[in-house]
Amino acid sequence: MKLKLKNCIILATDENGNFIVYKHEVLCVDNDKISFIGPDSEAPVCDIEKDMKGAVLMPGLVNAHCHGPMTLLRGVGSGLALQEWLETAIFPVEDKLKPIDIEVGEKLAVMEMLASGTTYVSEMYDFPYNSGKILSETGMRANISRVGLSFSEETEIPKGRFDECVELVKNWKDPYDRVRAEFCLHSEYLTNEGFVRRIAEVNKDLKTTVNIHVSETLREHEECKVRHNGLTPIQYLEKCGILDNRTYAAHCVWVEEEDRRIMAAKGASAIHNPSSNCKLASGFAPVKDLMDAKVNVGIGTDGTASNNNLNMFEEMHLAALLIKCVGKDATLGSAEEILKMATVNGAKAMGRDDTGELRVGKKADIIAVSMDKPHMFPAFDIPNILVYSAQASDVIMTMVDGKILYENGEYTTIDAEKVKAEVRESIERIYN
Amino acid sequence: MKLKLKNCIILATDENGNFIVYKHEVLCVDNDKISFIGPDSEAPVCDIEKDMKGAVLMPGLVNAHCHGPMTLLRGVGSGLALQEWLETAIFPVEDKLKPIDIEVGEKLAVMEMLASGTTYVSEMYDFPYNSGKILSETGMRANISRVGLSFSEETEIPKGRFDECVELVKNWKDPYDRVRAEFCLHSEYLTNEGFVRRIAEVNKDLKTTVNIHVSETLREHEECKVRHNGLTPIQYLEKCGILDNRTYAAHCVWVEEEDRRIMAAKGASAIHNPSSNCKLASGFAPVKDLMDAKVNVGIGTDGTASNNNLNMFEEMHLAALLIKCVGKDATLGSAEEILKMATVNGAKAMGRDDTGELRVGKKADIIAVSMDKPHMFPAFDIPNILVYSAQASDVIMTMVDGKILYENGEYTTIDAEKVKAEVRESIERIYN
Repeated sequence: MKLKLKNCIILATDENGNFIVYKHEVLCVDNDKISFIGPDSEAPVCDIEKDMKGAVLMPGLVNAHCHGPMTLLRGVGSGLALQEWLETAIFPVEDKLKPIDIEVGEKLAVMEMLASGTTYVSEMYDFPYNSGKILSETGMRANISRVGLSFSEETEIPKGRFDECVELVKNWKDPYDRVRAEFCLHSEYLTNEGFVRRIAEVNKDLKTTVNIHVSETLREHEECKVRHNGLTPIQYLEKCGILDNRTYAAHCVWVEEEDRRIMAAKGASAIHNPSSNCKLASGFAPVKDLMDAKVNVGIGTDGTASNNNLNMFEEMHLAALLIKCVGKDATLGSAEEILKMATVNGAKAMGRDDTGELRVGKKADIIAVSMDKPHMFPAFDIPNILVYSAQASDVIMTMVDGKILYENGEYTTIDAEKVKAEVRESIERIYN
Repeated sequence: MKLKLKNCIILATDENGNFIVYKHEVLCVDNDKISFIGPDSEAPVCDIEKDMKGAVLMPGLVNAHCHGPMTLLRGVGSGLALQEWLETAIFPVEDKLKPIDIEVGEKLAVMEMLASGTTYVSEMYDFPYNSGKILSETGMRANISRVGLSFSEETEIPKGRFDECVELVKNWKDPYDRVRAEFCLHSEYLTNEGFVRRIAEVNKDLKTTVNIHVSETLREHEECKVRHNGLTPIQYLEKCGILDNRTYAAHCVWVEEEDRRIMAAKGASAIHNPSSNCKLASGFAPVKDLMDAKVNVGIGTDGTASNNNLNMFEEMHLAALLIKCVGKDATLGSAEEILKMATVNGAKAMGRDDTGELRVGKKADIIAVSMDKPHMFPAFDIPNILVYSAQASDVIMTMVDGKILYENGEYTTIDAEKVKAEVRESIERIYN
């Protein structure tokens, strides 16, 4: 199907990756791809023309670190410090989650993400086949994984879990290539060296992305050094061979200068989670230093228990503010840099170069942001108003792979009322 | 007129100022005041009953530091450091503003504030009679002032400006007592000692609140000490007698321990502006230390040039996150404390004890927050979901003095399309 989006501002990207703002052009979609950006007079003939009423078209947001089904734990344990939060509030609830809850929680997450302009998500949670099913059915773009965990003290590998990680990567199939399986290591502190090395070993052939929590808290970072002869989590992962394939590391609050050098050299990405890091008081990630070291930086929301929502506009805003105040320099973190973090950088981190930008040939993962509300007016500069003024609620259309999944409050692949009823049912069982 | 709001959750306050969440009660408004909160069976007879469809009723938000007409400069100079931002981007545009622009900019500000749940604003800008007119006509609650400035090196008083400050306080009339005039000193660095002392002197009789920028940047704070024998701005203001009447000080990023002690002893309030302080890289205000010293802390958005919107939900969220991460303690800044900062504390700072809480006898300054969107679901804890998940766009009704000024996207006292046309006209003249 060929679709023309007209009467809109287009935040496109040139061949060097720089933003261009088009104010009098149209954008055409041919099936799953962007086929044309230019003057209407030169546009191809389309089946459908859509009047976008002056909205801004921009790349869909990429949430590069998320635990979607935790919507069922929204805000649980607010006000607790990380360790207590995990042990007294989160783990006891998670123990009660069944595969059906994962599906229900993932549906609610997708509803929230689509309504707030996220088109591509990194999903790290239990029961990946259940999450993956929902992400596929609802039309999201996603990476999924079986979370790599191994609690034994020695280097012995808990075979079941390891095999499940590999099995998912080998056997996950998506005819549209929207949802991809990857490896996940929970973290240095919840895996042992044998497990980590075996993942690196099998990934020499499988060559998929690796998703992992790195240096979220100072305690975790320092304890790693004690356990591994002074090696930080990044240095340890490099030694184990993990970084030989494209790796993206969530949080990176405490990464050191040498870590940043290694990440840049190995092409590992850092995923910044500003809300979660603040709420759990984990610290301010050294985003400027990561950028200076030429590390690719994406943005994630983390789960809704430590955020408490999946709003990438909020994360962009926070990232733009924090980099300035932490770095004591108001010129840091331009709106353009922040927008890239929340789009193309996240996609790149997650192993996809075919999305995250509005450019001919890229996947049609597009959102429309209304300029109609008072807070969006006047709009002197499009990137700035998107980062500093826009709200998730300004999203009026979300498209993935050329398909409109959300428009003006309505979902095309989700029955919102049915999902809410299912959430109520799950909640009742889990918390009673 | 008597109005009953039913089928809602009510975030009320008990006689000790603690929140109580009512889930099966109704709230009645009699003219401008809250007349009843309790079971429907005991409620007084009302002229109108309104089904609030499960929304949360909470006190209207109090924006205790704002420069409303700067909506016409939304985002101007983004990415510049404070001094350059002021001198190259802001002042040249402000020089061109005429009284009509102030009215137009204030109207746009009121539209944005009402849509995002703000019912009471501290307005600090030029042409207070023009701002005051719009704030009165649109039904907002506000404090207004003629900004006190005196650039002469000596203690000589620029008579015109001083007289205008006093004239406004003496002559401003509002039959409804919604919009009050007060004194404003721009700051220590833009006033001289004679001016400041004279304001303190006349305020011995007039006894109004005083609004001032204090210790926003380190430079300003340190230069004050050089100018005034080691006295910080707060210490200098105390010496000049300003703090003998209720004073509220915007920013307070660099206030010292002794400053905080003085503020608490004198009943001066600090107004936290987290977005603006981050965006201009001014620093993280010591909110925990202010609270520990028993200083009353309110919240403000500052102007839209340094924010770039007037969204108090965003400020609450940011305040809740920053206090934790700056203080390295996830237990700091409970949702209840943050909600008080954004409501009753702000009102108190601005000299009003009759609003900022849902309690019988208080002004009916009330907003309704919809719980309908996916990001508000499930809602285990009302204060937490309001601070961490809610968006300004969840506001479905804004009431001031018992009058509904905004409901479901529509304004009752503002012609939104007309205002937008007026803004376009002003913008064209100012920037061309």
